[in-house]
Formats: sequence, C-alpha cells, structure tokens
Amino acid sequence: MLQWLKHYRRDQLPGDISAGLVVTMMMIPQGVAYAVVAGLSPVVGLYASILPPIVYALFGSSMTQSVGPMAIVSLMTAAVIGPLAPPGSALAGVLAAQLALVSGAVLLLCGLLRMGFLANFFSRPVMSGFTVGSAIVIAYDQLHTLLGAALPHVHMPSAVLGVGTVLLLVLSRQYLAGLLKRCGLPPAVADIGAKLAPMVVVLGGIVLMATTGLAEMGVRTTGAIPAGLPHLNLATSSQHWRALLQPGLLIGFIVFLMSMSGAQALALKRNEKLVSNHELIGLGAANVASALSGGFPVTGSLSRSAVNFAAGANTPLASLITAGLLACALLAPTGWLALLPMPVLAATIIVAVLGMLELGILRTAWEYDRGDALAWGATCLGVLVMGVEAGVMVGVALSMGTLIWRASRPHIAVLGRIAGTEHFRNIERYPAETQPELLALRIDANLFFGNMDAVTERIECELATHQSARDLLLVMSAVNSIDTTALLALAELNQSLKRRGVGLHLAEVKGPVMDRLRNSTLLQQLNGKLFLSTANAFDQLHIAKDVA
Amino acid sequence: MLQWLKHYRRDQLPGDISAGLVVTMMMIPQGVAYAVVAGLSPVVGLYASILPPIVYALFGSSMTQSVGPMAIVSLMTAAVIGPLAPPGSALAGVLAAQLALVSGAVLLLCGLLRMGFLANFFSRPVMSGFTVGSAIVIAYDQLHTLLGAALPHVHMPSAVLGVGTVLLLVLSRQYLAGLLKRCGLPPAVADIGAKLAPMVVVLGGIVLMATTGLAEMGVRTTGAIPAGLPHLNLATSSQHWRALLQPGLLIGFIVFLMSMSGAQALALKRNEKLVSNHELIGLGAANVASALSGGFPVTGSLSRSAVNFAAGANTPLASLITAGLLACALLAPTGWLALLPMPVLAATIIVAVLGMLELGILRTAWEYDRGDALAWGATCLGVLVMGVEAGVMVGVALSMGTLIWRASRPHIAVLGRIAGTEHFRNIERYPAETQPELLALRIDANLFFGNMDAVTERIECELATHQSARDLLLVMSAVNSIDTTALLALAELNQSLKRRGVGLHLAEVKGPVMDRLRNSTLLQQLNGKLFLSTANAFDQLHIAKDVA
Repeated sequence: MLQWLKHYRRDQLPGDISAGLVVTMMMIPQGVAYAVVAGLSPVVGLYASILPPIVYALFGSSMTQSVGPMAIVSLMTAAVIGPLAPPGSALAGVLAAQLALVSGAVLLLCGLLRMGFLANFFSRPVMSGFTVGSAIVIAYDQLHTLLGAALPHVHMPSAVLGVGTVLLLVLSRQYLAGLLKRCGLPPAVADIGAKLAPMVVVLGGIVLMATTGLAEMGVRTTGAIPAGLPHLNLATSSQHWRALLQPGLLIGFIVFLMSMSGAQALALKRNEKLVSNHELIGLGAANVASALSGGFPVTGSLSRSAVNFAAGANTPLASLITAGLLACALLAPTGWLALLPMPVLAATIIVAVLGMLELGILRTAWEYDRGDALAWGATCLGVLVMGVEAGVMVGVALSMGTLIWRASRPHIAVLGRIAGTEHFRNIERYPAETQPELLALRIDANLFFGNMDAVTERIECELATHQSARDLLLVMSAVNSIDTTALLALAELNQSLKRRGVGLHLAEVKGPVMDRLRNSTLLQQLNGKLFLSTANAFDQLHIAKDVA
Repeated sequence: MLQWLKHYRRDQLPGDISAGLVVTMMMIPQGVAYAVVAGLSPVVGLYASILPPIVYALFGSSMTQSVGPMAIVSLMTAAVIGPLAPPGSALAGVLAAQLALVSGAVLLLCGLLRMGFLANFFSRPVMSGFTVGSAIVIAYDQLHTLLGAALPHVHMPSAVLGVGTVLLLVLSRQYLAGLLKRCGLPPAVADIGAKLAPMVVVLGGIVLMATTGLAEMGVRTTGAIPAGLPHLNLATSSQHWRALLQPGLLIGFIVFLMSMSGAQALALKRNEKLVSNHELIGLGAANVASALSGGFPVTGSLSRSAVNFAAGANTPLASLITAGLLACALLAPTGWLALLPMPVLAATIIVAVLGMLELGILRTAWEYDRGDALAWGATCLGVLVMGVEAGVMVGVALSMGTLIWRASRPHIAVLGRIAGTEHFRNIERYPAETQPELLALRIDANLFFGNMDAVTERIECELATHQSARDLLLVMSAVNSIDTTALLALAELNQSLKRRGVGLHLAEVKGPVMDRLRNSTLLQQLNGKLFLSTANAFDQLHIAKDVA
C-alpha cells in the first residue's frame, strides 16, 4: 500500500499526467454510457469514477489498473435493480449504491480471508463465452435507443444520428490511428489519440444538438445533469437489502474475475506481480467507496487500463489525476452534458462492446479441445437465453463440474521392481517384475473427498484382477495430504481388507502426512505395516511369505 | 436393469419376503410422518412409498436400497412449498409433486450425461454437518406438535402423550432388542423387532384415541385419510414451475448425495458395486414416478435400507413386496389411520431424527483436521441460522472453495541429476546436481485453468531465484492433460520468455498430450526444443552452451 508513493521518481510524473488526462477523456463518455446501461441516471457514472480509483490507488496492487464503471458489471447491475425500481429513478440509484456496498463488503471479506485463489475459478473459454454473450445482450439492449424507437419502428433523425455515429466510430477504430500517423503524429500518440474518438463524437453530438433542430425533431438527450460532488445516499429501502445479498455476491465475484483477467494480461507485459488477495481488498474498498459516493458497482476495465498503460501511466498517480479532473468537471457547469444525444451515447456503447466480441479463444478451443469450446458455447448461450445472472451460474456450474470431474480421475500406477535394482516403476510403462502375493499401487494424487471414491474403486478393481494378492501396498510418495474424508475411507478399506484376510501396508509416507496420521485410528488399527521405502516393503513382505 | 430377476434363486425368496414385511411396518409410520414434515397431507407419504420403490427396482443399481420419503428431503420440500401454499392444502400437494418431477428430471438428465462423479461433491464432514443441522431443525419444528401448543404454552394431554411416546421410543431403542433377546428371540430377529417400535406406538396411539377421551380433551389427530390408490395430479399452477426450477435442482442434488452416501455404506458391507450413473437414473425415475402418483421428492433412506438388509433382503423383490403391501393397505379401509394422534407422530419424527445426530465424524475431524471440523460447523450453522436451502449452498461453496484451493496448489519440483546416472530427482530431497544455465522443473499435476496461475507464478519465482538460467526445461512426465486455458497460458509464457532471451523446452511429454499439442501454435512458436527424456535435454542443452 502506497509503496509506489514512497519510491516516486520525478521522471515518472510526465507519463502519469498524460495518462491521467487521456483516461479522463475516455472516462467521461464511458461513465455516462455505462450508467445508462445499468439503468441509472448518467451522472452516477461520473460519481463512480472519482472515489473508487482513489481508494483503489491506496489498496490495490496493480500500477496501471483503471477502476470505474464497466459494461458487463453495469449489465449485471441493471439485471438486479431493473425488477425493483424504474430505470433512472432515485430508488434505482439507492439500490445500485447498496449493491456496490454488498459487493464491496463481499470482496473485502474474501480478501481478509485470503481467498484470492478464487481468481482461478473460470476457465478462459468460460470467461470468454460469458463476455461475448454479455456484449451481445448489451448491444441488443441499446438498439432501440440507437434507432430512437423500438423495432420494427425507427425514428429516422435518431437512427441517422445513431447509425452514423456507429459508422464513424467503427471507421475511426480501423483507420484513425493510421491517419493520425500519416499526419505526422508519433505512432504512440496516434494510437492513443484514436482511442479518444468516443469523447470527440460525444462533443460533436452535443454541438449538433445545440446548433441544429434535432431536438425539435424528437432526438432524445440525457437531460440535465446535477452539478456538484456526489453525496452519501444509502439510507432507504431496508427491505431491499435481503434481495440484494445474493446478486451482490455474484457481482462481487464477477468484479473480481473481470478485473483480475484484465490486470493479469497487463501485468505480464510489465513483468509486474499481481497479488490476488490485495486485488480483492482494493476492489472491495473501491466498491464500498463507490457506494458511499452515490455510485454503483465498479471494476477494473481492461480497455481503459490498456490505454492508461499505453499513455504512459507509471503509477496509480495517473488514476488520482483522472479522479481529480472528473471532480473538477462536476464542479464546473455541467449544463452542456444535458444536450448529449442518446443515439450517440448508444452508438458509443455498441461500438465499445463490439470490441469485446473476441472469438480467438473460441477458435483455439475448437481446434484444441472441443469440450472447452462446448463450455464457451454453453456459457454464451446461457447469458443470451437466460440472462446475465443465469449465465454466471452456468459458468460456475461448468467450473465446478470440471473441477470435480478432474479430481475424480486420480492417477494410480501398479508398481513392479526393475530387475536387480532398488527402483520401482509403473508396470504399464516399464518391464518391471511383480510378485503374485503382493499388489503395490502408487497413488499420484493427494487424497481427499473429491477422489477417494475413485481411489477405492480402483483399488477394488485391481484386487479383483490380482486374486492371488495377500498384501496390498500403497506407495504414498506423491501424497502430500490426506483429508478427514480420505482418512475415514482408508479406515473402512482397512477393515474391509482385514475381513478378507488381505494386509494393508503403507510405504514412503511423507513427513507432514505421517505427523497427522500418527494419532489416527487408521494407523492404530492398520492391518499391516509401515515401510520407509518400497524396496523394504517388497523385501520384507516377500520374506514373510517365504517363511510362511 | 432387472439382472437380479434373471438370476433369481428360490432360496432368496424367504429373505426378501421377511424384509418386505418388516420394511412395510417401518414405511407406514415414516411415510405419514415425513409427509407431515414436508407440510403435506399424511396420505401423500404413503403414495410416495408405492411407485418409487417399484421404479427404482427396475432402474437402480443397489440391491437393498429402500427408496421413499426421507426426513431431510421432506424438510427441503417444506422449505420450498411452504411460502407458496398453506400446509396440507391441495395446492401444496400439487407443488410437491411438481417439485418431485423437476428433481427427477434433473437426476435423469445428470444420469444420461453420466455425471455420477458429482457424488464426490461433499466431503463427509460437510455432509455430516448438513445432516445434523437438518435433524435439529426438523426436531425443533415438531416441538409444538409434540406439546400440542406453541412454546411457552403447553397442552397438557398432548404433551403427556407426546413426551411419553418419546421416552418410550428412546427406551425401546436402548433396551428393547436386549429384552427381546432375553425373552428367547434369536439376536437378529430381536434387533429387527426393536426397529418396529414406531409402528407399535402408532398402533398404540390409535387404540388410545379410540378407547379413551383424549380426543375430547383436545389431542389432535391426522384426520381422515382418503382410501384408494393415488392418481395423477400435476395439472395446475403453471406459474409455479419457474419458482420450482432452482429448488428442484438443489433437492435433486441432495436426493443423490443422501442416497449415495447411505447406499455406499451398505454396498461396502455386501461387497456390492454401486454404479453412480445408474443410481442417478434409478433415483430420477423414482422421483418422476412419485410425481406421477401424487407423491413428493423421495430418496434412499439409510435407516430403512439398513433394516431391509438386516431383515434379509437379497434383491429389490423385497421393495416390490413392500410396495404391494402398502398398495393393499391403501385399498383396505383407512379409517383407523385417521385416529393417529399428532403428538405420537411428532414423537416418532423427533426420535427418528435424533438418531441422525451422529457426532463421530465431527470428533474425528476435530482431532485430525481442524479445517474439516470448521467446515462441519459452518454447514451445520448455515442450516440452523439460514435454513436448509442456504445450508446446502454453504456446503456447495465450501466444497467449491476446497476444490479450487487444492487445485491452485500444484506440486512442482526443481530437478537435478544424480551424479553419474541418468536419474533426475527433486533437489530438495536428493543430492542432485544442477547446471547454472539450465532450470529444470517437473510439474506434478495436470495443467488446467484451476492451477495454471499457480504454475506460472512458481515458474517466475524460480526464474527470479535462478538469475543465471538461460534455458527453462519443463519435465512433463506427470502431466496427463493440458486444457485450453493452460495452452494459452503456456503460449504467453513462451512469448514472455522469448522477449527475455530465455529458451523454453519440454521433455517427456506423454503421448496423448503430444497428440493434442502437435497442431497448436504453442509448439509451432516454441522458443526451444522438445526432448524425449530429461537426460537428453540436460546433455544437449549443456553441449549447446559449451559450444556457445
């Protein structure tokens, strides 16, 4: 925390200032647009862009992450508060802030409990399917705003303005950077300049509305935006807290996953180390700050963070500068923002989310692993057909299923001795010698509830094919832990083998595992012996049989 | 399916008949009682005991499982339909049947998709904590019926009858089997006879009501039970289907887990093999059958199945006999059941669930692994404080958390050469020689989304401590699969290493893994070589450096 401030070097300042300026120019149209996606008053998007990045700068671990409103999280917010309050209403604003508070509290709690490992929850295909599905939903939801009327109707002036803006933005995304370069701008500056196209069209739209008769022709605008800084706004609707609890949990989860996946991509380029537990704290604090300043759930945005990085951000000071500039913008007269035409705003949203329609991962998965491609499709379809919340649940179910499926397939090898040596190997892969009275199995997995059924099943199966075995030796060299469920199952196996007159022996039990087992009933009642090495076990069990 | 019928031997018949009779005597009080727990008319419990065991006999894989009403599943049913319909109403009955249909469909679908591996979802401590919490909730819910009034009030005649029955049942559980043995009954018969105490007290209660003035004193009875077989009863309340979808999924999940854990315990004693995918189909079909015959969600009950087994059941014919006898009981006059006093029924429920208060697993976990004991406590507390549905969710969250946490801790060893040999070992455990320019890591886990972050983090960490390394060798001898996420992460690692001038080499890649990798961009762009053996890699990379 604030390590970067202690070691701040003066030569980092120019980069931070330029990045702060550039991101402010991106943040204004994005904040307003994503507040609209969330079904909130546009100004809420600006509120959510001031305090959260400041707080993240204090607690987060990424140097270039730009925390604020983000399309998918806004879509999830809309899905939660939509049924509870009319869009744009004061109640909707309060509920959105409450939702941010719940999400923030969940994230903080997870951070304090050091649950950063949850960042590994979604596979990339699931994450990508979820993103693409959400992008399509967001774009589709904006269609009627873009066209000024619900399909199949079209309000011509709005539609011309909206579709024209979409074309302009798409063309500028394709060609503007090249054009600026040919005009003599340095490549880096040209690339960043092209990212400011949304701000330019927003300003252009405002000028159009102010100077032409579009308003009289029925083109809708955002309407008056209250000036001044946000204020605390949580004290109502106590009956809604309960309804927000589960969605808040889901949104917190997605806030974390979205932010981590973006931040990791950037951290790799910077060779910077991201600490997932710090990220949980940083994002949690940012969401609580958003709630306390009348905002809504926020997260790190890959698109903004990438621009922040490209524009030269060296430290979170860039984000602090952005926050300061946005606060100034709210303190200045905001009357001009009232003229922003909705079709232009819809166009910026649509073009922004079209950029999220990245099918590269689907293509890779399709070629490499059809199962992963299926997971991509199921998650995307889940979002499209059942909505964004159900889509998350589909992703969770797929992840859980994959985890338990993988856990339930432990690797177990039948061991034999490489003739004349002290080495023991998998008999399927090496010409190793076995003894008919002794079945030796090496278990290549930690034993726990997720694989213990599979392990006992495999043991029974091997015993059935080795009918002559009077001793079962489990080689535990690769077992780093045994949980309570596995302990109980091993104790049952021991009893069952005892009844059948088969000895159960353990070899190469690791130190930490042994420390735990020492006082357990399993070892006290073990129907066999403990051996330090597999070779010892083979020799001694063999001799025992010879004598017998 | 029906394998047992094809190989039926006449000497199996006496055992099946006696078990069928005994279980019928258990099923009548249990069916009525658990229907009351579910907030349904008592007769529904009998309906749910006829068709489901017949259908399970056709599709299930356990020979002795007794499928029918079960306390915890009834509690979950009550939690779902309670808020939607008044207890005992016709609507409640329809909703319960719909719930069984949804659960059954979910189970059938999971069975067809071969998702039996989900049986490994809960650890035993989580399962035990869930069971104990549910038992306490059920017992507490029955207190006011037992005492004839809500606490702190007590209806004395009801309370005397109820508490007296509890004492009688507790004493008979403790001493009846011993008493019967001393009366000269064979031990096995005495044990089974003692299990019929609930039926005896139910009959005793009916006789008491018929012959004394208890009814006039205000002791409530179950009331008239319609005679005749159940009939199809699903065609109403289409608006409720949606509300039943998620709870039906949860109940299906618990039906499977409860049935499997009970059946596995018995299968171990019988040396019988349980096929989890067949169990899904059997339980799914049983629940659909329950829905179609006006019942409610059913599952395998460990207590009944154990008696079934102990009473001599050899095949599912025993369950068919039970079903036939119950059908006869419904076709005969059922007026006598109307006199069954509710406090006696409550007493049988309370004593039955008190038997589920098994703390042995908690004790084992407490001594062996405090984390597992904590999971026990969290699940139990979740059920007690937030209800049975939330309790399941706590269990699911704990399981998911544990799975992903375990996955995120893969074992990785730095390898060195045992001097003068072709053997390579973990340098932490063996005196093995390393080369400063070469860092060799053996990855002892399949690579997938759950551990790839941890793997790359560990690699970066090792590279940071081996600054002189110009080549990174990943020994893949223990990697049986690489999913799309891991493939993408490896490709990024490859690019990152290339930028830093470090080679990335792979050794001992297994056949199936290689087949997949062959056409991937990772191999095409690999900044290094593939080696068949670690020894080859050490030799060649060493020589390359010498020449350079």
